[in-house]
Amino acid sequence: MLNPHEIISEGSEVVVYIDERRRWIVRVVRGKVFGSDRGYIKYDDIIGQTIGSEVKLSTGFSAYVLKPLLIDYLEKGFRRRTQVLYPKDMGLILVLLGIGPGSRVLESGIGSGFMTSVIANVVRPDGHVYAYEVREDFAKIAMENLARVGLDKYVTVKIRDIREGVDERDLDAAVIDLPNPWEALDSIYSALKPSAPVAFFLPTVSQVEKLLNAIQEHRGFTDLRCFEVLLREFHLVSGAIRPRTRMIGHTGYIFFARKVIVK
Amino acid sequence: MLNPHEIISEGSEVVVYIDERRRWIVRVVRGKVFGSDRGYIKYDDIIGQTIGSEVKLSTGFSAYVLKPLLIDYLEKGFRRRTQVLYPKDMGLILVLLGIGPGSRVLESGIGSGFMTSVIANVVRPDGHVYAYEVREDFAKIAMENLARVGLDKYVTVKIRDIREGVDERDLDAAVIDLPNPWEALDSIYSALKPSAPVAFFLPTVSQVEKLLNAIQEHRGFTDLRCFEVLLREFHLVSGAIRPRTRMIGHTGYIFFARKVIVK
Amino acid sequence: MLNPHEIISEGSEVVVYIDERRRWIVRVVRGKVFGSDRGYIKYDDIIGQTIGSEVKLSTGFSAYVLKPLLIDYLEKGFRRRTQVLYPKDMGLILVLLGIGPGSRVLESGIGSGFMTSVIANVVRPDGHVYAYEVREDFAKIAMENLARVGLDKYVTVKIRDIREGVDERDLDAAVIDLPNPWEALDSIYSALKPSAPVAFFLPTVSQVEKLLNAIQEHRGFTDLRCFEVLLREFHLVSGAIRPRTRMIGHTGYIFFARKVIVK
Amino acid sequence: MLNPHEIISEGSEVVVYIDERRRWIVRVVRGKVFGSDRGYIKYDDIIGQTIGSEVKLSTGFSAYVLKPLLIDYLEKGFRRRTQVLYPKDMGLILVLLGIGPGSRVLESGIGSGFMTSVIANVVRPDGHVYAYEVREDFAKIAMENLARVGLDKYVTVKIRDIREGVDERDLDAAVIDLPNPWEALDSIYSALKPSAPVAFFLPTVSQVEKLLNAIQEHRGFTDLRCFEVLLREFHLVSGAIRPRTRMIGHTGYIFFARKVIVK
Repeated sequence: MLNPHEIISEGSEVVVYIDERRRWIVRVVRGKVFGSDRGYIKYDDIIGQTIGSEVKLSTGFSAYVLKPLLIDYLEKGFRRRTQVLYPKDMGLILVLLGIGPGSRVLESGIGSGFMTSVIANVVRPDGHVYAYEVREDFAKIAMENLARVGLDKYVTVKIRDIREGVDERDLDAAVIDLPNPWEALDSIYSALKPSAPVAFFLPTVSQVEKLLNAIQEHRGFTDLRCFEVLLREFHLVSGAIRPRTRMIGHTGYIFFARKVIVK
Repeated sequence: MLNPHEIISEGSEVVVYIDERRRWIVRVVRGKVFGSDRGYIKYDDIIGQTIGSEVKLSTGFSAYVLKPLLIDYLEKGFRRRTQVLYPKDMGLILVLLGIGPGSRVLESGIGSGFMTSVIANVVRPDGHVYAYEVREDFAKIAMENLARVGLDKYVTVKIRDIREGVDERDLDAAVIDLPNPWEALDSIYSALKPSAPVAFFLPTVSQVEKLLNAIQEHRGFTDLRCFEVLLREFHLVSGAIRPRTRMIGHTGYIFFARKVIVK
Repeated sequence: MLNPHEIISEGSEVVVYIDERRRWIVRVVRGKVFGSDRGYIKYDDIIGQTIGSEVKLSTGFSAYVLKPLLIDYLEKGFRRRTQVLYPKDMGLILVLLGIGPGSRVLESGIGSGFMTSVIANVVRPDGHVYAYEVREDFAKIAMENLARVGLDKYVTVKIRDIREGVDERDLDAAVIDLPNPWEALDSIYSALKPSAPVAFFLPTVSQVEKLLNAIQEHRGFTDLRCFEVLLREFHLVSGAIRPRTRMIGHTGYIFFARKVIVK
Repeated sequence: MLNPHEIISEGSEVVVYIDERRRWIVRVVRGKVFGSDRGYIKYDDIIGQTIGSEVKLSTGFSAYVLKPLLIDYLEKGFRRRTQVLYPKDMGLILVLLGIGPGSRVLESGIGSGFMTSVIANVVRPDGHVYAYEVREDFAKIAMENLARVGLDKYVTVKIRDIREGVDERDLDAAVIDLPNPWEALDSIYSALKPSAPVAFFLPTVSQVEKLLNAIQEHRGFTDLRCFEVLLREFHLVSGAIRPRTRMIGHTGYIFFARKVIVK
């Protein structure tokens, strides 16, 4: 955690922000130079400055040196090897599950760790993410991404197919991003405490239908709900505000349920 | 916090869930009865049961007694006197601001405390929400709502117009839901640490335009972005899955910015 | 058809427009009175006036007496006994099919005749709609609606299940709004000229999937495309423009294809 | 117009359709060859075939030779020098205005003639489009596009700023796609018959607001409405149906009004 007026030093990761299309997360290295089509900056000139300061590029253009937020890593910083959840979807999942400090959460798969980082960020320091992932290469990238933002210590990854069972019991919530989640219902059920919520992320309607059928047959879950989130970003030009011409038209569906004890 | 297999007792708040249209947050009172058009349950019969259990209504229909999540309070439990943010918007704001345990957050106004509860839930126990609200009646309802879910101790409300200034300095983030936020830019600026993010919630495009003009003139903020979130809920009937016929078409725009030190 | 400055006379159908929530299609009857919560008008006072004129209600409020457009009948005038297509969907279908004066079009079912009226309006006077409908009561309402706007003479309704075959050949296009259109593919194929387009309207994704599978197996159609149209209406208040709070979130999917001769 | 089983001949324009990404409008020329990354076809081999027929590419892949619809020209055939309206918007405008055979319609500007072609296609043969366009180069491209589909004879273009006045009176409808339509209200008013509708197309909310203010001050129009149409296209893969990942997020707003006689 930073002190309020963090001073940029050798090795700091910062966002160099020029305009909406020109922003990068970079590591400050003494003696080196940051270059762009708008001009360059010597890192030596920003070492010692307060984070958040305006700096001048060699061309006279202004840039800002910002403290990276998690959203910067999600948009520009993390490596991705997989389809990833988008902030619009991760935000709704956070609010639906109601997780917070101390929550113990099941996740499978971990993908590139994007959702994991968002969960870990709100459950720390006493909560934990238990992540099951079959692909060792994905797990490795995910943990590298998490380490980069200091969140790896709140996550345990197990290289295992969740369908083979989970070690944890009485978890507070689950986030499931698997192609065939209907095959994992028993494992998810066994990991959750009674009444605990689970969110599934599913790219196609056919998956929603299969999960719906399977979960109704399983009978261990209720309060089934399904959502789709659309995000529009606006073009912010004074006197000509309008939604951007292009948008992401689809990522996936969020399917919510809660574990119940059937008698 | 509940123990894993929480046992329902006199005074517990629980969700009685029959189907998607029939769910209520109720307080369990010995000797009393819960009634609905699907039948009734004697509270005495659920006292001593594990939360998450299936129960039978007098008619033989099944119901489930669930542990209330924050989303239940947001949808069904909290009193509302004002227009409130929706989970879709609150979720994106959480992810954009990157707040978590320990974050100290400015909020104004507090409205009915819906957004406040979502923030407080992730910043506890060491973080805090500093909320400015001009309407004493709104603040009262908000704090009652927060107390109901045990989050009031993480929130300080001040009955004051934020335009008159704020007492805090070096806060980590701000959430502003005011009709004229462009008049509060100096206050917001003074409260935030350099590089800290702020999210404004604005129902109309005219407000977006006014804020854009004011914030560009103010020069103390950069990375201006504006989003709109649309949420579709699906009708989950096997073999006939489709989006619901009616949806909320608009709540408001989320305007993001970060404080900078201009030279 | 009206002459340019049509004069309102006894028996004319007109729209009385007070504001966006207060508009009705009414028939002008000498000696009678139009009443609303904003005041009344004697029809005698509008007989002899030019259509499109401002009139004063008894209370002094302004109203306008407008010539009904087809959209007025679609929104406020036609009787409906069935789920109907919405203007947003009908418009896209018109443009996708490219129908115009002289086009001969297959339709099944006719429902309440809403889509029929939109098609008939652009194919007249030499084109024609051949409509198959199993429900005699729907056909009756549809033809009454069409007669009301003078379009019935461009439509022939047959009370028959289209799956039993159609009498027409070499039609220019087809619009199919049936629950099981995959069972009607042979009939549709036989009615269309080679290369002619067909638009199916389907409320659920499961239907889209079934139609896709059936049409791929049938092999008589290509250029399969599927669309969904979302319409937002805006609240037009100067200084506070915003999308309406509530919107129709879903009507159905538009599935497009063209007949081909497979060798 | 084609006879039902049109035979492809030298000079015919046809769509060669291989798959959703591989479709082109081409002119059949004896002795020449159509080539693609999926193989080639000798035009000599398709001359004499019925339009709509399957043909084999040199590689054995199937293709279809289709009769071009207006939508093919709108998507793939017409030259475009300007921002153009999309089928989703043109369709709603057609239905809102209720135009059909015989309608006389004002248009300004003509742009690349896309909307013009859709209007001309439904008002022919007795209706007409009177189009005002200040840019002679745009008018030229538009008329070339219209001539290509045989619709130029239903359109008269005048190279004139509509703000300087229009020659026509008592037109049935107007479609206005101008950057400053509020300056053209007097011209539009003078061209329309009383009660006739007008649709404005406006890319930004600021324009909607300016038009709203101007039209309320002008007082010659009522029934002001504003719409936005969103179109999602689906990825049609059996077992994995879902909306396409990318979509057009914004084109513009459709602002509707009707001329009235104020007293």
